[in-house]
Amino acid sequence: MNASRTTTAPRPSAKMKLIEAAQTLVRRQGYAATSVDEICAGAGVTKGAFFHHFASKEALAVAAASAWTDRAAELIFTLPPWTRIEDPLERLIAHIDFRAAMMDGPAEGFTCYVGTMVQESFASSETLRQASDESITAYSERLAEDIEAAIATYGIRDGVSALSLAYHVQAVLQGAFILAKAKADPAIARESAAHLKRYVIMLFDRGERE
Amino acid sequence: MNASRTTTAPRPSAKMKLIEAAQTLVRRQGYAATSVDEICAGAGVTKGAFFHHFASKEALAVAAASAWTDRAAELIFTLPPWTRIEDPLERLIAHIDFRAAMMDGPAEGFTCYVGTMVQESFASSETLRQASDESITAYSERLAEDIEAAIATYGIRDGVSALSLAYHVQAVLQGAFILAKAKADPAIARESAAHLKRYVIMLFDRGERE
Repeated sequence: MNASRTTTAPRPSAKMKLIEAAQTLVRRQGYAATSVDEICAGAGVTKGAFFHHFASKEALAVAAASAWTDRAAELIFTLPPWTRIEDPLERLIAHIDFRAAMMDGPAEGFTCYVGTMVQESFASSETLRQASDESITAYSERLAEDIEAAIATYGIRDGVSALSLAYHVQAVLQGAFILAKAKADPAIARESAAHLKRYVIMLFDRGERE
Repeated sequence: MNASRTTTAPRPSAKMKLIEAAQTLVRRQGYAATSVDEICAGAGVTKGAFFHHFASKEALAVAAASAWTDRAAELIFTLPPWTRIEDPLERLIAHIDFRAAMMDGPAEGFTCYVGTMVQESFASSETLRQASDESITAYSERLAEDIEAAIATYGIRDGVSALSLAYHVQAVLQGAFILAKAKADPAIARESAAHLKRYVIMLFDRGERE
């Protein structure tokens, strides 16, 4: 183990640095405004290293979307202690609380890499649109599992489907990010998350069913 | 009247064409990806005419945000017949139905110029951020008037404020646009509008109060 730590492994490290630099820069200034030169400077790697790993800015952006999905799976669906709450509705509400609590500090720190990218690239790059869709879909399908379990336990109003509600959670988060950017204030985004939480509680309406 | 129609008024016309071309191009491909040359080509005016009216792309983008606000005031808050519905809650629900019905065809046809612009420019241009904020704020404050009237008539759960709910309507719309772009399908956006409508109906909960 120590041996592997002391050996230099520049290639995987440079690749990951490029992915993280792309995510950081796109979240801060969008996709079109971000150049390969800036990404290399941000990652502290050469342009030669860039093109060793990626054929183009678009290819890096696709890899960064996939890494973004993995990051969400870890940071939002696996690591936090509340992900182990047994009751699926309480877990869903804790999910929304967690997303609201993340909305703090500069917007580029809590907003969505793929949501920012697809906003401007949906019509110009089918490749980036699909990569963004895959990431948003993976998040929504994972969240829908919890919602499905909550519906099985408590029922839900109007026959709302788990996946439809999961996508709505995504929509509210993505839209809340835009308000936070426009107002340069994350408080407005947390307010939308509070509306979303109220909606979910009313949809499940446990008080009347228990 | 006829006389003024037959006189040529190239300057105002070129200005408006530039504003509309900027709105169209930014909605389709974002702000950074849109060049002054493309805007001129889209408007069918010369670069000389562009710089006669606007000092920079940013200056045009600000004028286009202001024009966007005026357009929303007309197309969403003044012209549609449902804006004259007397009951403020029915008018609010008709507003959401109208926004949902607009979500059809290619995303660049129903999505938001300022929401798209601020997504990528919030950190790089304080000027564009403020122009976008003003437009989103104008929409939300106008909508809050209807919500305020609905609260006065029917009351609302949990002391939700009219302006907070108006901004949430904006958040859901903006986020729904992102999902429609990611999925290349406006149906997913209409689903979020349906969730929003259900939330508003539950918030006012007329059945229990009347």
